Amino acid sequence: MKALEEKIVKEGAVLPGNILKVNSFLNHRIDAAFIMEMGEEIARLFYEDKPTLIFTIETSGIAIAMAAAVNLGIPLVFAKKHKSGNLSGDLYKTTVHSFTHGTDYTVVAEKNFINENDRVLIVDDFLANGKALEGLIDIVNQAGAVTVGAATAIEKGFQHGGDALREKGYKVCSLAIVDSMDDSGNITFRQQ
Amino acid sequence: MKALEEKIVKEGAVLPGNILKVNSFLNHRIDAAFIMEMGEEIARLFYEDKPTLIFTIETSGIAIAMAAAVNLGIPLVFAKKHKSGNLSGDLYKTTVHSFTHGTDYTVVAEKNFINENDRVLIVDDFLANGKALEGLIDIVNQAGAVTVGAATAIEKGFQHGGDALREKGYKVCSLAIVDSMDDSGNITFRQQ
Repeated sequence: MKALEEKIVKEGAVLPGNILKVNSFLNHRIDAAFIMEMGEEIARLFYEDKPTLIFTIETSGIAIAMAAAVNLGIPLVFAKKHKSGNLSGDLYKTTVHSFTHGTDYTVVAEKNFINENDRVLIVDDFLANGKALEGLIDIVNQAGAVTVGAATAIEKGFQHGGDALREKGYKVCSLAIVDSMDDSGNITFRQQ
Repeated sequence: MKALEEKIVKEGAVLPGNILKVNSFLNHRIDAAFIMEMGEEIARLFYEDKPTLIFTIETSGIAIAMAAAVNLGIPLVFAKKHKSGNLSGDLYKTTVHSFTHGTDYTVVAEKNFINENDRVLIVDDFLANGKALEGLIDIVNQAGAVTVGAATAIEKGFQHGGDALREKGYKVCSLAIVDSMDDSGNITFRQQ
């Protein structure tokens, strides 16, 4: 999505530790109109796969998942990273390793909200090593539902999580794929 | 908002500890089309106040804040409960007391994204004792911006946070106000 690549170049910043900071429009301040355009693009890419449910993970996936859900006319479920007081039902659980924090965390979703008839489109803001997406796919599998694919805003191609999932046969679409970036702020996008 | 009251009665559950569980459409599974209608109603209520920015707090406020932002044609910022690796700028900070968890937590937002020209509409999913809203108002004050009001989906009227803010002169609009609820699931809404 050309407009996203341009916005990353214009507003993004490369920080030490392979962090691409896009806080000004994607995951702290949210450019709501632009995120809705991204949701429209995700809907266009996955309309033919007939998803019945968007599945994301808190926190920064929620806005783009909402935009995709509105454009596809389907609900969304966001998985939670910790069991909170108002999750009282039976839960699906999985463990995700965070390279950023060097720890494992538990991800949960209520069993009520994903079932074997669902065709699930996973949506998230970033795709790096793919561990969060793998955790969400594990929950979809536990539910006996079908993963129709994954859509992410920005993929860090050089961390290979997206390509590993594609090699396993998943349809993974990222609106921008960063194949390289450096501390001087040079960013190379993959041609799509 | 009559449709919201009906949805709370139909899909909500009252759990011990004054928890009103609306996980099926508001804060775990999200009924995207319905949340957009709620955003439209918030836009109608606050259009005349000319907000320039929606301000919410992670996690479960993000979807309804997004819906309000889209309908008002303005961006949103969500405050974060913990300093994360990709918040690197100067931060506004405030402390919020959580009655649910019996602890204080720090809420932060980057200084870049709220400034003295902003007219800020605070949006959240729940309003109970009002401590989270007070924290967000504190950040708006630190920025020298104006709080034009607060919009929440569901207010627990019997916890008095909303009325305390109204007595201080804030415009606080909740789409449904629960004045009483009991463990048998009886819910009384305030006439608005």
